[in-house]
Amino acid sequence: MWQGQNRYEETQITKGMKTGPLESGESSSDATPAKLMISVVAVLDFMLRILAAAGTLGSAMAMGTTEETVPLFPQSILLNAEYSDLPMFTFFVIANSVACAYLVLSLPLSFYHIISSAAKSSRIILVVFDTVMLALVTAGASTAAAIVYLAHKGNANANWFAICQQFNSFCERTSGSLIGSFAAAFVLILIIITSAIAISHR
Amino acid sequence: MWQGQNRYEETQITKGMKTGPLESGESSSDATPAKLMISVVAVLDFMLRILAAAGTLGSAMAMGTTEETVPLFPQSILLNAEYSDLPMFTFFVIANSVACAYLVLSLPLSFYHIISSAAKSSRIILVVFDTVMLALVTAGASTAAAIVYLAHKGNANANWFAICQQFNSFCERTSGSLIGSFAAAFVLILIIITSAIAISHR
Repeated sequence: MWQGQNRYEETQITKGMKTGPLESGESSSDATPAKLMISVVAVLDFMLRILAAAGTLGSAMAMGTTEETVPLFPQSILLNAEYSDLPMFTFFVIANSVACAYLVLSLPLSFYHIISSAAKSSRIILVVFDTVMLALVTAGASTAAAIVYLAHKGNANANWFAICQQFNSFCERTSGSLIGSFAAAFVLILIIITSAIAISHR
Repeated sequence: MWQGQNRYEETQITKGMKTGPLESGESSSDATPAKLMISVVAVLDFMLRILAAAGTLGSAMAMGTTEETVPLFPQSILLNAEYSDLPMFTFFVIANSVACAYLVLSLPLSFYHIISSAAKSSRIILVVFDTVMLALVTAGASTAAAIVYLAHKGNANANWFAICQQFNSFCERTSGSLIGSFAAAFVLILIIITSAIAISHR
């Protein structure tokens, strides 16, 4: 009677030990698609960062190298226009340069996330900086856009005249440089969303 | 003998049923700090949303109700300045109104997150919209700030003169309305970070 009980206990224990790994095996087979999902998201994150870095770099360079000299005929003097004439354009160049530097520096960490899907704190740290950079890039692009708009259209109520008739190539160049910056802001939104998805599937 | 075994089986089952809740009790005691953490973060998120909504509402109202009429003495005509004279100020009012409406509408979902800590998809949806709203509020505040800066300082290179000597109260009001908007943008950054932390602790 007692021996039988002991043997029964043993089988119960063995059963218990068997159910243990089986359960964890089930959960790991559930986790595999989630891990694959994280890896796909991490690769996407890496590629988006390169895209955003290229956008900000292009914008900063296009704006930073903008310069135009036009002759003012009646007085025979030369009018020179460059980005540093307007503090908003200077801010635009600085904001895009800072964002570009950050995005390049974040690439190794982003690459580490492709390998290690379990990383949590480092992903949150990236989300924090990504969000701040989104605000910075958007602010830079918006201030520059406001000035580009004024330069093109002017404002009769404030007596600010459009300067694009005079500085045609300057206006075209500054307008074009906005594209990369706004695209980078959009890509940064996508980066934050992919990071949130990666964190949730961890 | 069989009766005894059956009775033993029953006790084993009862034990098993007892150990079941005990184990889950252990894991829930592990999960309790995490759940408490999520609840604290969810309450913080709710309060930050109210704060950001108040900021955007205040900014939109302060800018939207700005109007100043100054007499121009020599010609004895009245000069009128309001926010709709400048398209960037109109964008500022619209951006802040949209963000305020979204933040108020997101409050019930944020309250639901305080009760249910397991919610995942709804948190990610909120992160997506929060990020877009951060970009919108930052863009609105930045364009308005660029114009306020021009109104105060003018720009000699572009021949844009400062208009704040004429429209003193208009300038003060528009400058002040920027504060709420920039504060809301900062609070939105905090909201996105708290959301990321809540998702990671889920």
